[in-house]
Amino acid sequence: MKVAVVGLGLIGGSIAKEIKIRSISSIKVTGVDINLSHCKQAMELGLVDNILDLDEAISTCEVIILATPVDILTTLIPQILDKMNDKQVLIDTGSTKIKVCNCVAEHPKRSRFVAAHPLAGTEFSGPEAALMELFKGKKNIICEKEKSAPDAVALAIKIFQFLGLETYYLPAEEHDKHMAYVSHLSHVSSFTLSKTVLDIEQDESQIFNLASTGFASTARLAKSNAETWGPIFDTNSIYLVEALDRYIENLNAFRKFIQEGNQVEMKKIMLASNKIKPVLQGISSNKK
Amino acid sequence: MKVAVVGLGLIGGSIAKEIKIRSISSIKVTGVDINLSHCKQAMELGLVDNILDLDEAISTCEVIILATPVDILTTLIPQILDKMNDKQVLIDTGSTKIKVCNCVAEHPKRSRFVAAHPLAGTEFSGPEAALMELFKGKKNIICEKEKSAPDAVALAIKIFQFLGLETYYLPAEEHDKHMAYVSHLSHVSSFTLSKTVLDIEQDESQIFNLASTGFASTARLAKSNAETWGPIFDTNSIYLVEALDRYIENLNAFRKFIQEGNQVEMKKIMLASNKIKPVLQGISSNKK
Repeated sequence: MKVAVVGLGLIGGSIAKEIKIRSISSIKVTGVDINLSHCKQAMELGLVDNILDLDEAISTCEVIILATPVDILTTLIPQILDKMNDKQVLIDTGSTKIKVCNCVAEHPKRSRFVAAHPLAGTEFSGPEAALMELFKGKKNIICEKEKSAPDAVALAIKIFQFLGLETYYLPAEEHDKHMAYVSHLSHVSSFTLSKTVLDIEQDESQIFNLASTGFASTARLAKSNAETWGPIFDTNSIYLVEALDRYIENLNAFRKFIQEGNQVEMKKIMLASNKIKPVLQGISSNKK
Repeated sequence: MKVAVVGLGLIGGSIAKEIKIRSISSIKVTGVDINLSHCKQAMELGLVDNILDLDEAISTCEVIILATPVDILTTLIPQILDKMNDKQVLIDTGSTKIKVCNCVAEHPKRSRFVAAHPLAGTEFSGPEAALMELFKGKKNIICEKEKSAPDAVALAIKIFQFLGLETYYLPAEEHDKHMAYVSHLSHVSSFTLSKTVLDIEQDESQIFNLASTGFASTARLAKSNAETWGPIFDTNSIYLVEALDRYIENLNAFRKFIQEGNQVEMKKIMLASNKIKPVLQGISSNKK
């Protein structure tokens, strides 16, 4: 079998590497990327067997996996489907799903496409960020399963299982709403926290001598790639703005209690927030 | 030498444990805590050699180290100084320093007190959270060094060095302002992020299936102890409210760009935030 991976960054590179290195059957992995230095790096790092351009990959590979920034997907997916036959399978891995699903809602070859989102990543980017076992023990979401052909879904699940992912099914709207709260909001909060501290630091040279692991933890996601996250925020703007409004409202309330010295209300918020403990426990045990 | 540790939680417990277990000279560690179950646990866990009440500890120990919540310090420090002789040394470890320094500004025995803040901690609390090597390779801040007697400062530094801490000196105002940005703001942001997600989760049962390690990282500090952090926020409210105002202002700007689909401005913020990378690198290499 021949598999093409389009977009050789953290996610695409990790998928390619895992298939190329761990697959015992004769699967060939073709890499596609408009960034030529990514192509070169992917070959040097042994992530792929060869590099082709997109049209060559479509005409030679049974499976095409897309791991580009999400804004490109809505252009790319209909174009690729146009050129595919009725046996090939197209799978995306984008972090938002409503726009992706909508862009092919009326496409005659919709059934050859599987809208997926493997929930994995690090704050690093590019082919050199590709990791073995990035997906091990993590979750994968497939949206609009009923619009994909059963054989296409079965093949996609087989690949995701091979990567170590367990697949769940959600409507695209639910996926995007939940992601706004448990992923995208964290990224905006982390980017903004870093910016706030960097701004003040211009006048306060010693400030980072005092930064501890607590700050490092909350600011870690601020290392994330702007090319990846800009399009994610943009394609999930409605739910993300809703999540941000609630977050800012809660921050303003907390700020008011701090200013008033209202320890009773501060404590209430902190005790309510402490209830996140079992959730975080679940994430960290899942990580192992 | 006899050392009393008052407050047997994460910080006090770790100081006591480290001195009791690693000290080769004949240092005896006395524990003091108004919470009797903390006293019992500290004995069972081998953190201290014995438990005394505060007055007994003052009358028998050459060094008294305070690791209580910060709001209690302003009452405790003058009371203890009143009862101390001119050779004993009192050291606090509180996370805010202006109010602590002010409460003894005019005290006749001010010179026997050293205002310190070892920059270490985890999100856990109580005697069972006490850790060996919690302080290793971390930084310690002493404020108003010039108001402490040289022999008192020298002894405090010796103890902090033994714990693995390197001591820096800062005015109390600078300490509190910097801490508002690189520690307290992170805690408010993390508590509030958790609350926001927990609130929405009441109607969205599946939401935490989708939470990833990114969320876990930004929400980790929400596990922190309300009894510790309420008084920290309260005693640093002026600088913390200033930091929160800047953070909320930056969040509102980011929110606006997301809502408008202004990818150029979003990208500018993210690229500016990415400049946190070397700072985080410094924190993590310092951690090792």
